[in-house]
Amino acid sequence: MTDRHPVTVVGLGAMGREIARILLEAGHPTTVWNRTPGRADDLVARGAIRAGTVAQAVTSSPLVLVCVLDCAVTRELLEPIAAELTGRTVVQFTTGTPEQARGLAAWAAGHGIDYVDSGMMATPPMIGTPDSTFLYSGDQQAFERYRPTLDLVGTSRYLGADAGLAGLYDLALLSGMYTMFAGFVHGAAMVGTVGGTAADFAETAGHWIRATSHALPYAARFMDSRDYTTDVQSVEFNKAALDVIVQASRDQGVAIDLVEPIQRLLAEQIAQGHGKEAFDRIIESIRPSAA
Amino acid sequence: MTDRHPVTVVGLGAMGREIARILLEAGHPTTVWNRTPGRADDLVARGAIRAGTVAQAVTSSPLVLVCVLDCAVTRELLEPIAAELTGRTVVQFTTGTPEQARGLAAWAAGHGIDYVDSGMMATPPMIGTPDSTFLYSGDQQAFERYRPTLDLVGTSRYLGADAGLAGLYDLALLSGMYTMFAGFVHGAAMVGTVGGTAADFAETAGHWIRATSHALPYAARFMDSRDYTTDVQSVEFNKAALDVIVQASRDQGVAIDLVEPIQRLLAEQIAQGHGKEAFDRIIESIRPSAA
Repeated sequence: MTDRHPVTVVGLGAMGREIARILLEAGHPTTVWNRTPGRADDLVARGAIRAGTVAQAVTSSPLVLVCVLDCAVTRELLEPIAAELTGRTVVQFTTGTPEQARGLAAWAAGHGIDYVDSGMMATPPMIGTPDSTFLYSGDQQAFERYRPTLDLVGTSRYLGADAGLAGLYDLALLSGMYTMFAGFVHGAAMVGTVGGTAADFAETAGHWIRATSHALPYAARFMDSRDYTTDVQSVEFNKAALDVIVQASRDQGVAIDLVEPIQRLLAEQIAQGHGKEAFDRIIESIRPSAA
Repeated sequence: MTDRHPVTVVGLGAMGREIARILLEAGHPTTVWNRTPGRADDLVARGAIRAGTVAQAVTSSPLVLVCVLDCAVTRELLEPIAAELTGRTVVQFTTGTPEQARGLAAWAAGHGIDYVDSGMMATPPMIGTPDSTFLYSGDQQAFERYRPTLDLVGTSRYLGADAGLAGLYDLALLSGMYTMFAGFVHGAAMVGTVGGTAADFAETAGHWIRATSHALPYAARFMDSRDYTTDVQSVEFNKAALDVIVQASRDQGVAIDLVEPIQRLLAEQIAQGHGKEAFDRIIESIRPSAA
């Protein structure tokens, strides 16, 4: 479907507004709805159609994009209008747990609604740029049908029929982002104790994080093979580095909440006799099989 | 000093060997010493001079580079040969706490030894490439004298006369790297529960981490100004995302050690009434002033 079919966007937070703007610019008749109607004003000024109710919004288009706070809000909004949604495609951009996405998919299937779940790997300024990736899972036929439209907002990647997959990968990637930011927070707190600015530290840290991120595929090889044999960067070597980080943080009066868990998992691997193996073996401490 | 003066490298782990190799290739007469002498074999084959004792090693050159396991080993090796080191420059590449570096600097000053501390922001394969940055602090005159030599191994950055600065920045950057890797470990564990490989995840995660790392300077502005006023990405918004990450991890049987602390700090900020402010306010929970 490459025509400029109508699209409805439900939920006009930062993400929903940005998506609606891109669809409008691409020439799609775009209907918008938000609980607080004022949020639609600038989109209406650009040509969007403001719907008075969610039911009116969804019946305006064969494709309904939902960008609300959480899955509970999605259910609250969509369940009363299941009949109006029958035969349409719902793409859910709200980040939820895989279980929540599967629950929505089951509900949708029960009402003849084509359901696709999405994980947005993008901050609002990244939307519409090549840096943004949108993960999709669920109804593959519906995904393929609307793929040209979905490709407008970012690079699309379909993960499989299990509706929970997009959310799971989304959350896995967000975990990486949050911990990266958390590490920056910790580092900025440390340099702050000697008068260093976070702005100056951000330049060096950004360069460093990007350079070292290229080692992730090497880490992955250990994790996939579960063979952690190495002659560099052992658990013990890295535990020693974490010990120094923790000690220096304490010396400077910086709380160790964000770095101590890594030290703890490395200590656990040493206690289990794996001190000479690769750092990445800490995954064995958190994997389900660890139980 | 741009001549090919002699250099001594004490400690031939992965880093020391790589540094000695680069100095040899640049034409510096290079003396090497390692507790286990066999470690020097390939360097000797390339033209390095093997010293029989640490004392012989350091008296061969005006510049002594120390790359050993930790600061305790540095002290153990250098303290007995303080007299031999008098009038020479010691550059210490071993990662220690700022307090340890300051202790070594004080000891060196007491013996007329010029002391420079260094933090190597490089993994061994990065040494000698533009991606590697070496942070220096301590005796500025000694640093400037040998800067052309030090520039051979990576981009040099001098931080100040306080010998503790290089170690502090080093540890701050390592904190960022370790937590980034920890986040990848968590994410890989999550995708692993649905049969996804870490290798595949590493590709997507690397791209995502590099893309989002460009937001660090924005985070820094909040931290430096301590004005966390925002209308996007609030503490509450991100706490909701962490709640979903934690719940989904539990659903999948993945232990939450590496992500739970971020959720906890966000909850603390909400409890203190800062839920509408920016995510980056969690730094206030770990800064010394938080006490």
